[in-house]
Parts: sequence; C-alpha cells; structure tokens
Amino acid sequence: MNKLFIIKIGGNVLDDPESFKTFLNDFTSIPEPKILVHGGGKAATKIGEKLGILPNYTQGRRITDEATRDLVTMVYGGLINRQLVARLQVLGCNSMGLTGADGNLLKAVKRPVKDIDFGFVGDVTSDGVNTSLLLFLLKQNIVPVVAPLTHAVGDVLNTNADTVASVLAIALSKYFDIRLIFCFEKKGVLKDPQNETSVIRKLNESTYNELLSQGALADGILPKLENAFSAIHAGVREVLIGAASDLLKNAKEETEGTLITQSRSSYT
Amino acid sequence: MNKLFIIKIGGNVLDDPESFKTFLNDFTSIPEPKILVHGGGKAATKIGEKLGILPNYTQGRRITDEATRDLVTMVYGGLINRQLVARLQVLGCNSMGLTGADGNLLKAVKRPVKDIDFGFVGDVTSDGVNTSLLLFLLKQNIVPVVAPLTHAVGDVLNTNADTVASVLAIALSKYFDIRLIFCFEKKGVLKDPQNETSVIRKLNESTYNELLSQGALADGILPKLENAFSAIHAGVREVLIGAASDLLKNAKEETEGTLITQSRSSYT
Repeated sequence: MNKLFIIKIGGNVLDDPESFKTFLNDFTSIPEPKILVHGGGKAATKIGEKLGILPNYTQGRRITDEATRDLVTMVYGGLINRQLVARLQVLGCNSMGLTGADGNLLKAVKRPVKDIDFGFVGDVTSDGVNTSLLLFLLKQNIVPVVAPLTHAVGDVLNTNADTVASVLAIALSKYFDIRLIFCFEKKGVLKDPQNETSVIRKLNESTYNELLSQGALADGILPKLENAFSAIHAGVREVLIGAASDLLKNAKEETEGTLITQSRSSYT
Repeated sequence: MNKLFIIKIGGNVLDDPESFKTFLNDFTSIPEPKILVHGGGKAATKIGEKLGILPNYTQGRRITDEATRDLVTMVYGGLINRQLVARLQVLGCNSMGLTGADGNLLKAVKRPVKDIDFGFVGDVTSDGVNTSLLLFLLKQNIVPVVAPLTHAVGDVLNTNADTVASVLAIALSKYFDIRLIFCFEKKGVLKDPQNETSVIRKLNESTYNELLSQGALADGILPKLENAFSAIHAGVREVLIGAASDLLKNAKEETEGTLITQSRSSYT
C-alpha cells in the first residue's frame, strides 16, 4: 500500500509565526500524499473575548453554545483554514480547505444530551468519513486541509481536532499505509511530566496499559492517547506524537517523539 | 453544450432568514449543474464593529486593510460559506465551500498601487480561474459555493463578488451554455430608480449604450452592468439581473428580471 501522512497541528504551531513558517516548509517538503488537520490556537479565544463570547462551562465541561459554534466556524473554518491554504499555495503545495460539511466530508451526530447538553458538538466515527472524496482529491495531488468542524442536519458542529485526525486515519487505513502524526507542545509522551527529556520512545497497547495502571501518564495526554490507540486498533499502522519541528523534518523514518504501533515493542 | 447556472447572491438573501430559506430551496431545486457565488451581507459589518474593525476609506474609496482582510476571511470564507454548505447538504445538495486559494481556484494580482493603495484587494480575470478544478467538481455533482476571496503570493485577498461570478462565467463559457444570474434587492434594472415596476426586461449593448447616454441608469447598478457586459462580450450567453425569488423559481426559461444577451433586442 502507498504511504499517507495525516498530520494534526494545534496552537503551538499556529500561534507562533516562526514555528508556523517552519511547519509550512516542512509540511510542503513531505513528498508523500498527505492530509493536514488543524486545531484552533489562541485566535478563537482572542476573537471570542473581543466579541463577548466567553467560554461556557456546565459541570466543568466546555459547552459549544450557538455563539461559540459561529465563532469556531469563523475562526477555524475561515481565518485559520483559508490562511493555511493560501500560505501552502505560495509554497507550491496545492491544497484545499475543508470542513466536514464540504462535499459531506465528515457527517456527524450532534452529541445526544445525557447529563450535560454539550450544544453544537459533533460526534463522528470513521463511518461518517467520505473516503471517496478524499481519495479523489489525493489522486489529483490536492492536499486536504481539514478544520475540526463536522456537520449534521444543516448545522456546522464543533469536533475535537485529534478525533477528526483519528477518524480520517481509520477510514483511509483500508487504502493506505498510514502514519498519523499528532504534533503538540512536548517532544513526545513523557514518562515524567516534569522532565521534558523523559520521552517514551515506543508504546504499544501492553506498555500503555502498564503505564496507565502505574498512574504514570499526565492527565492531559490521555485523550490524545485514546485517539491514538483507537486508530491503532482500527488498522492504522503507526501513530507518532511529538513536536512538529522534530517529526516532520524530511519526514524520515527514524524520528523523535513517541511511536505507537500495533506490534510489541519496549519503551525506554 | 450543457447548461450551467452561475448564481450570485448578496446581503438581501443572506441577511433575511425567510429569504435565505426560500433561496436554499429554490437553488437546490435547479436540476442543472450550478455554481453559487456569495457576497457578505451585514454579518461582516456587525462583527467588524464589535471587533473594532471599522470601514476604512481613502479619497472616498473603501480600503481593505489587514484587519478587514482577516475579517472578511473569517466571515465570508468561514461563517457564511460554511453555513451555506451545511444548509445545502441537509437539503441533499452536495456542495463544497471554496475561496480562491482552495485548489488554486482564483489566482489574482494584488491591486497595484497608483493613486490609492486599496490594500488586500485582488484583481482577477478569467485567466486566473482554475477551470479544470471546477469541471472536475461539477462532474462529481458537487456544487461549488464560492466566497468572494482570491489569493496571490500567500495572501487571501478581498474581491468583489459580482466580479468573481463574472470571471467564473467567462472562464467556463467554453464548456457550458451559461446563464449568469445576479440576484439583488430590486426586481431588475430599473428605467426609473424611483419606480420599482419600471424593470427593463431586455438589454443588449446598443440599448445599454442608449440608456447610458441618456443618463437613465442609477449609479448603483453601473458596476453590476459592467460585470454583466464583460461576461456577455467574452462569450457568456445570457445574464439575468433581478430578485432571487423571481429568478430561481423552477429556473424556468421565461423569468422576470432583466435579461441581457448578445443578440439585438428591444427594451420595454
């Protein structure tokens, strides 16, 4: 099978002009077919504050009310997504900015209300991915640039960007040998959250469970690891977690960061 | 040649929920291949006011400074464009929201500075249109929904929506028998701007020149007519100008509004 890179970036790349520029060059240099999924960064918070749209919580959980949904539609689906594409175009990377509504790329279900009404949040699985659209764009050498927005019944919905990257990887794992890369602010999954050099180089299910039972992993990394392992379970060959600057340079096989695979391996 | 509808809508459709809903239904009902181009409406002004981004003029001409460019990228390219697509999807109209950067759809030139620096404004001609991308989407029964944004050298640029519709029509006139429809707040081009029933039913170049020399046309309609006639000159078969509710219903041949054609005809 051909290789496909699915790369997710967040605030730490988007918010710093130098990191962003480096990222765009590194991303463009990857010769293999690729998909970019981006989060929001600080822009949504900053613009939201100016518009008087403040984060809304119920029982400690973040709610996407209508104003917040419109804010992320503007900022994620407009400002960030369109600027990313314009910046990639000038580097010669022909790309197309998409939300889940575009070409019915990501059909979600508005999260059912149980204890909490999360508002305009979309739950999406790999069944909701329009793989034929992606195959068709990739065949034309067009790089999909995907905002973390899904849709259902006429509504744009807010969806976690890691989850979007993960379900895209799962849906395409039938067609490609996928390397799913989660870029974040650390150099990888840390054994000791206080020690930036304690990167766990390799993880599989058994070593992950071992670390979990020891309570060795910081809370912040758990949702990312859940997305990573749900991709691995569903057939994605490998997931890499770490810093964009380490993981994309030359897209070489031997990278830094944490490599998660199905096969047994030891962690150091 | 097959028929293609290119329909441009602006604030009068976008700003009124009832008109918008009617439009979406009428648009979806058109069985022929179609492209939608949208303007901005009041949303950009309202959101701009809240963000402290006020219209900026030099020598009476509107300038797109960087803050305004980011505002229209958010509002036109994000909020309006993405919501339009989500609303069309639920009606069964498979559509895709695009700016000029996406798939290199509309490559522009940043307007050169002469007397005035217009800022982030893109001048685009039919040469800048990626027709193969449009042909390819239309072949897949995907309706392009185009925001009035172009790109050049890594920048998203603001471009007049009527102009975008006109250059798309020109670029595709080799492949389709095009009906370009400009929807606006009047029922057509009025002979007497004070009299809503004085719609000129047919216009061609000679009747247009005659009216111009009489000073019979309101200033506001002139840019729209310039876009219309530049399309007609370049091979677009017909341009219709009028109210969305009149022009799209059943997309029948005999419509209301002002019909502009190459052939000689009289106006009433």
